[in-house]
Amino acid sequence: MSTPNALGRLSLNQMTTKQWNVREAIEGCARAGIPAIGLWREKIAEIGVTQSARLVRDAGIAVSSLCRGGWFPAASAVERRARLEENFRAVEEAAELGADVLVLVCGPAPDRDIAAARAMVREALERLLPFAEQHRIKLGIEPLHPMFAADRSVIVTLGEALHLLRGCASPYLGVVIDVYHVWWDPAVYEHIEAARGSIFGFHVNDWLVPTPHMLNGRGMMGDGVIELRRLRQAVDGAGYRGPIEVEIFNEALWSLPGEQLLKLMCERFLRCV
Amino acid sequence: MSTPNALGRLSLNQMTTKQWNVREAIEGCARAGIPAIGLWREKIAEIGVTQSARLVRDAGIAVSSLCRGGWFPAASAVERRARLEENFRAVEEAAELGADVLVLVCGPAPDRDIAAARAMVREALERLLPFAEQHRIKLGIEPLHPMFAADRSVIVTLGEALHLLRGCASPYLGVVIDVYHVWWDPAVYEHIEAARGSIFGFHVNDWLVPTPHMLNGRGMMGDGVIELRRLRQAVDGAGYRGPIEVEIFNEALWSLPGEQLLKLMCERFLRCV
Repeated sequence: MSTPNALGRLSLNQMTTKQWNVREAIEGCARAGIPAIGLWREKIAEIGVTQSARLVRDAGIAVSSLCRGGWFPAASAVERRARLEENFRAVEEAAELGADVLVLVCGPAPDRDIAAARAMVREALERLLPFAEQHRIKLGIEPLHPMFAADRSVIVTLGEALHLLRGCASPYLGVVIDVYHVWWDPAVYEHIEAARGSIFGFHVNDWLVPTPHMLNGRGMMGDGVIELRRLRQAVDGAGYRGPIEVEIFNEALWSLPGEQLLKLMCERFLRCV
Repeated sequence: MSTPNALGRLSLNQMTTKQWNVREAIEGCARAGIPAIGLWREKIAEIGVTQSARLVRDAGIAVSSLCRGGWFPAASAVERRARLEENFRAVEEAAELGADVLVLVCGPAPDRDIAAARAMVREALERLLPFAEQHRIKLGIEPLHPMFAADRSVIVTLGEALHLLRGCASPYLGVVIDVYHVWWDPAVYEHIEAARGSIFGFHVNDWLVPTPHMLNGRGMMGDGVIELRRLRQAVDGAGYRGPIEVEIFNEALWSLPGEQLLKLMCERFLRCV
């Protein structure tokens, strides 16, 4: 991923430009000199994996990650099996797209028992890993902010994700660190260092005050309170040399023309990250 | 606080009935057989501390806590001193009201440096403690949910609050555990046990899915996903015998007649806590 220019590590996570389809996002990256993109399965489904793979290849854009697998816990064994099989499909798609990493958002509990749901995540990872290894796709657990514990991910701290890694001990299992989800954690720098060798992705954005919306209220880098440079330096200090994805869910940014958004994103990446 | 009836440990945190003033809340508790109330300074300010103290005494209602002190970090030493002096006033008010505990919400950082703000909290606690000890008022640090890290409290986990306790080592410094703020934490049961002897309060409510509002979207017990009984049993198991305050910030509940809300609260307390 490293190129001599200053945007060499920048990657556009596709959800930042939700107003664009896959083709528009890839062409936008190519025009803006952004060397990589993080793709989303729901966007890819609009035109298919084969067509999407051709588009990125033809544009010379790297696929830094595929979002997303996961969503493992479910009330019944049958449903958990279906979730797992959906993850097999995601691994195959990642391989066809030439993505390095499948990002895992682990899912909420089907009931009030969060501890049991966490055990389901571990069990699913143990079943998914051999398949991912066969396809040479790395699995990156993305711990989400604790405010998503009830509806998106029972894995809510980097420390907990690392605990899962230690339990599985595969070079194909690592973490994706998103500043939005971890910046508040008093142990974040300690955990980043502990993740050395297992950091498969790094996402940037910002935490706005006040937060306009729990899900779609993330900010552009520099507009919020996250110590972005300190966190980026810590991740680099832990040996990470890979792409830095900008992933922002924000209604206001989605209403901008995509070109204008990419221009702002590149400026802020250079200034704040 | 222990009485033979099943509501013996119940306390109404006054913000649950924001539609009521101090007098209405106290009279409501007396009618409903709720033996204690957690008062808020902004409500007390409407009629004064002396009058409020007389009302609770006359009604035979205990004051389980006063909300709230804290808000320690600030950009300048002069401003931090002003914040500290406001906390001295809060301690004096707690003493006049006969409250056991002053609840501390520690405040956000004045800038992006959350680590520096955490150091300001520690420094303020060291200065506030001797004053609180003189007045025999216990200080209860309430770690808030990490989604409030940017605007309400840099102390966001029970583990971090316990770390502050170990640094200060005073029997007048402890924690207030609110299920809303800690339920997501994979270490919560370990930390509750570690808090043995230092638990100064326990707040209940629920986490709704979806959450209607970041601040005012808490739920009535039983309407959400928190394992209330397991957490209550853990807190009891760690030796806590004090009041259990119901603290719910919820626009929909605030629009109900207070009597109806208290009735629902008592039913749910018995069934779910």
